[in-house]
Amino acid sequence: MNARVRRSLNSSDNIGQPAGFSFSAACAGIKASGRPDLALVEACAGTTAAAVFTRNRVVAAPLEIGRASLKASRGRIRALIVNSGNANCAMGKAGIRACQQVCRELARLLQLRPNEIFPSSTGIIGVALPVNKIVATLPHLASAREATKQAIAAFAHAIMTTDSRPKLASATVYAGRTAVNVLGIAKGAGMIHPQLATMLVYLFTDAVATPAELRGLLLDTCEQTFNCISIDGDTSTNDTVLLLASGHSGVRLKQSLVRKDFSDALLQVCQSLAEQIVSDGEGVKHVIQLFVEQARNRAEAREVARTVAHSLLVKTAWAGADPNWGRILAVVGRSGIALDPAKVSIKIGDQMVCRGGVACAFDEKRAHLALSQPRCDIRVSLGRGSRSILFLTTDLTAEYVSINADYST
Amino acid sequence: MNARVRRSLNSSDNIGQPAGFSFSAACAGIKASGRPDLALVEACAGTTAAAVFTRNRVVAAPLEIGRASLKASRGRIRALIVNSGNANCAMGKAGIRACQQVCRELARLLQLRPNEIFPSSTGIIGVALPVNKIVATLPHLASAREATKQAIAAFAHAIMTTDSRPKLASATVYAGRTAVNVLGIAKGAGMIHPQLATMLVYLFTDAVATPAELRGLLLDTCEQTFNCISIDGDTSTNDTVLLLASGHSGVRLKQSLVRKDFSDALLQVCQSLAEQIVSDGEGVKHVIQLFVEQARNRAEAREVARTVAHSLLVKTAWAGADPNWGRILAVVGRSGIALDPAKVSIKIGDQMVCRGGVACAFDEKRAHLALSQPRCDIRVSLGRGSRSILFLTTDLTAEYVSINADYST
Repeated sequence: MNARVRRSLNSSDNIGQPAGFSFSAACAGIKASGRPDLALVEACAGTTAAAVFTRNRVVAAPLEIGRASLKASRGRIRALIVNSGNANCAMGKAGIRACQQVCRELARLLQLRPNEIFPSSTGIIGVALPVNKIVATLPHLASAREATKQAIAAFAHAIMTTDSRPKLASATVYAGRTAVNVLGIAKGAGMIHPQLATMLVYLFTDAVATPAELRGLLLDTCEQTFNCISIDGDTSTNDTVLLLASGHSGVRLKQSLVRKDFSDALLQVCQSLAEQIVSDGEGVKHVIQLFVEQARNRAEAREVARTVAHSLLVKTAWAGADPNWGRILAVVGRSGIALDPAKVSIKIGDQMVCRGGVACAFDEKRAHLALSQPRCDIRVSLGRGSRSILFLTTDLTAEYVSINADYST
Repeated sequence: MNARVRRSLNSSDNIGQPAGFSFSAACAGIKASGRPDLALVEACAGTTAAAVFTRNRVVAAPLEIGRASLKASRGRIRALIVNSGNANCAMGKAGIRACQQVCRELARLLQLRPNEIFPSSTGIIGVALPVNKIVATLPHLASAREATKQAIAAFAHAIMTTDSRPKLASATVYAGRTAVNVLGIAKGAGMIHPQLATMLVYLFTDAVATPAELRGLLLDTCEQTFNCISIDGDTSTNDTVLLLASGHSGVRLKQSLVRKDFSDALLQVCQSLAEQIVSDGEGVKHVIQLFVEQARNRAEAREVARTVAHSLLVKTAWAGADPNWGRILAVVGRSGIALDPAKVSIKIGDQMVCRGGVACAFDEKRAHLALSQPRCDIRVSLGRGSRSILFLTTDLTAEYVSINADYST
């Protein structure tokens, strides 16, 4: 009874669809490009919810409202409204009021309570949210809702900012003959970092679960997936992962076997979305699967992985497919872990390039070729213990700089 | 009796010259380019020394030898030998033996003990030091020594790697009518970070001082200068700051007035070198003078400054002279300090762009113009206390990526 994960990059044709949710998207005119920038999900009565948010101390208005609403409604969410093109962050009380007005208007249209609406925003910081444009678009958005794959695809497109493609993944598990679906939709291309970063992830399932059950599953899953990826080390003010359970399948997660299968399915959907986010990173040419091994514990493995993943010198070497392992060793040395350099070994692709802290003979052309692939494994062994971590990261290209050197102006 | 600091970027014409030191440089063939790559300083008998080294756990062979020699000789150093083009790092025992061989040969030629020689290396990591080439060049290097400005300039050139220009600064203080000179020579263009980074700094003075006095002065000065700069956040395995005092002026630092003046002179020389290093950073178009103010203490001010200075999104915005202060606010929020975003204000040039964590109206063109200058002030006020720090950093350009994407291959 293994979960089958289906992944879709450019079409949503083979996406599994959990019952109990309807989707729509529209152009509200928030993005100067005129592209879709407003998206809605309505969930059926009884839907339960859990969410995790950015750890940044600067938090956007919709996150404050969303957190408060989850608390006030005791984890009962009936609609999700997302705008792209504006983060509604650093706008003080005006930003809070703007978000409340959107939620109130949508609640009125859908005949819900405002605290059953979960809001998200992504885009530029410090610019007033164009509330009137959003409110004017809500009636169309509410009436256009459909429980179709086309509507899911339109939702995935409308939440994009600098993403080059929509990000979807789904999985189905069976409890006896009854199917339980998990669907994930994500956005996020730059500013990606463990502890979340301009990354919005929405997970939908038709399982039956309490908000507390969802919360436990979500924390475990995020720790193993979205908290182990990094493109540029920056953490956004708006990051959100939301998990909604409609209960339509009638399958309860209380049964331990179902719970295990469901947990695997959720992990696989999130792992797929994490990989899709990293490989669509701004200007990314190479995805690096960075294994940090032989650590004393997971925390130090992750600290080393993060330090390597954030080094400009290492990331630029990867951009050039340059097997300059000396830079990796130097970064491992400054990671703050009390390691013995004489026990550190480094592998690029299938070749050992540094053993016991010392250069070893290797075929540079083969290492260059391995790093030239869209995806390459790099293994750093610390010689301190038996814990390991897989961390997904990317190179840093001149294109990343160009994309980010001229964003707001 | 203020120190007069003289700074020279392209010539060493107006460099003050401490008595007791002679300089030479040569092409040993370590650099593929055929440029000068070996440099020597001989110091007169009685010269005292102190040094600070990288805090990276991975430490190059010459640093291990230099640290051991300083200890064994009780801070008496008679010669400094520097090669560029090869870091002699991550080569294990072979690297240590290579460095020892160079020191032994030079000691024989100059009739000194090997532990009176202080070695430095800078360049690529993980490649065997070409000892034979170096040893073959030592006799010429030893005989070519001169106590002239030309020889000082040649030394400053020979220690360069990706530096585009030599870095020199000097200052003179007076004890009555007797002049005391301080001369500083530095290299370092990429991989620059607080806690030192492929940065070599040599400071020469003709004051009379004990190794312990020199050490105290050096630690204070580095904390205020070289530990408050960052280009890319990477810390090298080879960083060294060495201070040598020949005693030729006959002026002792024991007198408190002289000590104060001397300390100021040393600070100004190091501040000038730090600025020269940052403005010659790889691909740097803009130097940012980042003031972090109203912090509870210096440590948290520096933590916020570092986090901002290392953010790819902030650095790329600076490259585009983009007054995207939202990225700065978001980075301040993730710096790990328990700050209240509602008390954070940000100034770009002379304009407040964010007050109390909220956007304020400002002239975007004027902010863009301020950021377009080679040097721009940015002030982040935390509203937590009264301590502040000035941190020098840079933008991140596509040129930096190009320089670093293809270094070793």
